[in-house]
Amino acid sequence: MDDAVIPVTDWGFTRSDVVYDVVHVHRGAFFRLADHLDRFERAMARRRLVPAENRAAIEDVLHRCVALSGLSDAYVAMACLRGRPRVAGSRRPEDCENHLIAYAIPWIDVIPKDVQARGAHLWISGTPRVPDASVDPTVKNYQWSDLTSGLLEAHDHGYDTAILCDHDGFVTEGPGFNVFIIKDGRVLTPDRGSLEGITRRTVLDICADRGIEAAIAPIPRAMLDDADEVFTTTTAGGVMPAARVGNRILGNDRPGPITMQLHDAYWQAHDDDRYRTPVRPLAVQP
Amino acid sequence: MDDAVIPVTDWGFTRSDVVYDVVHVHRGAFFRLADHLDRFERAMARRRLVPAENRAAIEDVLHRCVALSGLSDAYVAMACLRGRPRVAGSRRPEDCENHLIAYAIPWIDVIPKDVQARGAHLWISGTPRVPDASVDPTVKNYQWSDLTSGLLEAHDHGYDTAILCDHDGFVTEGPGFNVFIIKDGRVLTPDRGSLEGITRRTVLDICADRGIEAAIAPIPRAMLDDADEVFTTTTAGGVMPAARVGNRILGNDRPGPITMQLHDAYWQAHDDDRYRTPVRPLAVQP
Repeated sequence: MDDAVIPVTDWGFTRSDVVYDVVHVHRGAFFRLADHLDRFERAMARRRLVPAENRAAIEDVLHRCVALSGLSDAYVAMACLRGRPRVAGSRRPEDCENHLIAYAIPWIDVIPKDVQARGAHLWISGTPRVPDASVDPTVKNYQWSDLTSGLLEAHDHGYDTAILCDHDGFVTEGPGFNVFIIKDGRVLTPDRGSLEGITRRTVLDICADRGIEAAIAPIPRAMLDDADEVFTTTTAGGVMPAARVGNRILGNDRPGPITMQLHDAYWQAHDDDRYRTPVRPLAVQP
Repeated sequence: MDDAVIPVTDWGFTRSDVVYDVVHVHRGAFFRLADHLDRFERAMARRRLVPAENRAAIEDVLHRCVALSGLSDAYVAMACLRGRPRVAGSRRPEDCENHLIAYAIPWIDVIPKDVQARGAHLWISGTPRVPDASVDPTVKNYQWSDLTSGLLEAHDHGYDTAILCDHDGFVTEGPGFNVFIIKDGRVLTPDRGSLEGITRRTVLDICADRGIEAAIAPIPRAMLDDADEVFTTTTAGGVMPAARVGNRILGNDRPGPITMQLHDAYWQAHDDDRYRTPVRPLAVQP
């Protein structure tokens, strides 16, 4: 990984003009790889980023990264960067040579496992989430300043991580994860300011399968105070329970029962052949 | 420059957790170097970034970059990146090893000189500038998504570059520059959504010296339609006249007279010893 570098003058860095995605490998198989590639392709198209590789070639690169790493559980990142202008001195994005980067590294939990076990303590950030009209949150991006501000506030107050609300006081997401609340058996996740997470979608799929009422809906901040359970979701962590939100202790100060049911179902879904793409051994790779 | 790289896993890239500054060298001397370093230090402090080098050491690095490059006119960049966690797997900014990067490259004009000569055509972007409460625009950062969106829109419509307004319809800045309007001899620049530009400050200083009325003030979008002259300012370009804004042609479709007076005064200020810091020859460097 020490050899995986980008130029300091790449606009992917100097303008954060880059989209990315992260898929994970669990016990030797990608989880919902096609969904991640769909989202990555949509994000590139929205930012008019066109790498040299087509979708099949990108998929080959990801298989190869994982196979070369020898990892059976991995965090697999892909990004498309604006690159640098073909014409020296140009300030036009249209003049740049876009390029793909990808790598596989050992599995990382966004929230450490011991914190997940006791339930995360979530700070409600005073920094408002960047509005969707300014930066589309469904285009997965590295522009984390508001999320990092929330994280620093959370740590200042002894919390694990943060939830951000938007300027109108609606719940959005946190640094690297979607947010869910459960109230009276109903599972809700925000309709704004949020990535369309693949783990989020898996949770909604599980709810549909099991007849648990669930919806993507506006969530005013006050609903956090009133929730029976709160959890967060991300590729790098799955379903991650919370035990405290702001100054409120949820239930018994531990992960809630519906959350744990969804958590277990999420990991069971990893055995579902609809979602699994076994990593191709190097020998059969192009 | 091809050897100047950062790891793909540096949070300066993957979270755009980085602040930067750019100072220019004109005829062998830095222009307002102390002011750039002041601003860079403030930006680092706001984001709690602490590189290994203190201010004097950073200044030495910049002198050394320029002297080694042999350039007498240069674009000199410095950035402080969050870096990577000292503890593998940590997601805490507090655990990262912050680090400085710096480089000197040939002078770049943000708006090409021929476009400056005829007066730039500025598109008024439909993408609202990220609000100050979410991302502090006075902390110089690489999170350009909204600015890049404006730039792409501008190019789609055959314009050179763009001005962004905020959610409330007030003028802010453009991709890499501050905005000024002149109305009835009065020079105005936005009080929000904008970097505290050093070139902007120099223009305000020149106005004060010459008895030209000038102010930092709220500028509703409608004032763009009503302005006598419009210009933009940046370190990498100086005072850059506009000839068209949106569907409006200013004056005679060419740079305005007060703009050109400020333009000339700006370059004359480069002879002022208060602003000049001659680049130290390598022989006298530490």
